[in-house]
Amino acid sequence: MAEQNIFDNETFFGGYRELRATDANYNEQLEQPAIAELLPNIYGKSVLDLGCGYGHNCIDFVKRGALNVVGIDISKKMLEVAEKESSDEKITYLNMNMTDISILAQKFDLIYSSLAFHYVDDFASFAKDMYSLLNPGGYLLFSQEHPLVTATYGGNHHYNKDEKGNYLSFTFSNYNEPGKRDTFWYVDGVEKYHRRFSDIINALCSAGFIIDTVCEPVPDTKATEKIPNILAKEQIKPSFLIIKAKKV
Amino acid sequence: MAEQNIFDNETFFGGYRELRATDANYNEQLEQPAIAELLPNIYGKSVLDLGCGYGHNCIDFVKRGALNVVGIDISKKMLEVAEKESSDEKITYLNMNMTDISILAQKFDLIYSSLAFHYVDDFASFAKDMYSLLNPGGYLLFSQEHPLVTATYGGNHHYNKDEKGNYLSFTFSNYNEPGKRDTFWYVDGVEKYHRRFSDIINALCSAGFIIDTVCEPVPDTKATEKIPNILAKEQIKPSFLIIKAKKV
Repeated sequence: MAEQNIFDNETFFGGYRELRATDANYNEQLEQPAIAELLPNIYGKSVLDLGCGYGHNCIDFVKRGALNVVGIDISKKMLEVAEKESSDEKITYLNMNMTDISILAQKFDLIYSSLAFHYVDDFASFAKDMYSLLNPGGYLLFSQEHPLVTATYGGNHHYNKDEKGNYLSFTFSNYNEPGKRDTFWYVDGVEKYHRRFSDIINALCSAGFIIDTVCEPVPDTKATEKIPNILAKEQIKPSFLIIKAKKV
Repeated sequence: MAEQNIFDNETFFGGYRELRATDANYNEQLEQPAIAELLPNIYGKSVLDLGCGYGHNCIDFVKRGALNVVGIDISKKMLEVAEKESSDEKITYLNMNMTDISILAQKFDLIYSSLAFHYVDDFASFAKDMYSLLNPGGYLLFSQEHPLVTATYGGNHHYNKDEKGNYLSFTFSNYNEPGKRDTFWYVDGVEKYHRRFSDIINALCSAGFIIDTVCEPVPDTKATEKIPNILAKEQIKPSFLIIKAKKV
């Protein structure tokens, strides 16, 4: 598997840090509240956070009573921030590729991941590894870019507006052609993988997971106040896909 | 629930009969082969076909060894054709609304439905009724119009082509606004219900179903020979969604 680590690129890291410095972004206002609503009770449980970034969620898991938390990220720069800002004796940060998790000895009650799985090439195999790492009764809860966002080659999708600037519709292509996508996000050549709904659900079910809930979040009033046009845009096409699945 | 029976409208029925008279259509070349691949073994089993139309699938289930088949359709005209063309002692045709199935006394091993569920208003409640009608180990297998097809108000989506007529992309809206859609299909005012991918999966899972397989079919070589541009169009955006789910 290609070991993409765009997050340690200086230009990228600068842009990303700026994006995350304010809370008027889609992650804080739309994706994070929606995924938080689906969190199972983790009091006294073990949690694995894949693509933990700054470790903000790891700290949140400790606050919710988690027994221990392992945060994994491929980016050293991210984990340096995590060690500074989100340090706790119950948290262990590991600098590794999340698709190498089969080397871990510990089992977990929750595997969590926010907006990282669209970087994974072989999701079917990865789903099996995650299933193996869960205790019976454990949950996988993750968000990713919506398949309608990852679909179009070169990221060449767009919203259409009327002459007054109102959002009307969304134009995309290549939905039914799963595979690698080269996109631009602060820098050129950010590699993502487009998977259809069916590919994602089938990979999880083949691995043994029982689907619990699927969410395509719609912004609430607070998000609508913070980010102009977010409601109009998200009603046309969701930005995120969130899935909660269980190991029986 | 509104009792829509567009299929007994003379204009509609004429147009529909013509569409189905040739095999160079999306149903025969794309949806039917894809759903057939997911059929469980029904030898010696009971099958319920919801929205059975001409009864062609009911006859196919008998040929595959089904013990008995119940075909339900809201259209008398459809069932008149079914009684003529697809009659068999193992098949019972019932002229009723498929959302009234909770009045049936029999249980089934397979509930099958081809391209009818996008007419159902309350899918969550309907999914529960179907779950109750299945024997343990039984399957629900259905196809419906893809959520990207049902999404746009007034059916005002469209493909975009270049100046040479090549298909490039698809423009839609209102995906994240589930609910009723008034569309045109031979006649005005055909009522459909748009559900997002998440709404469909969540309704099935809440009813107790375990998702087995989700399919967004891509045309094979034969379809590509029969129908010009079908491959280019389906690679951009699938027309159908097929789901197989199990009652444990």
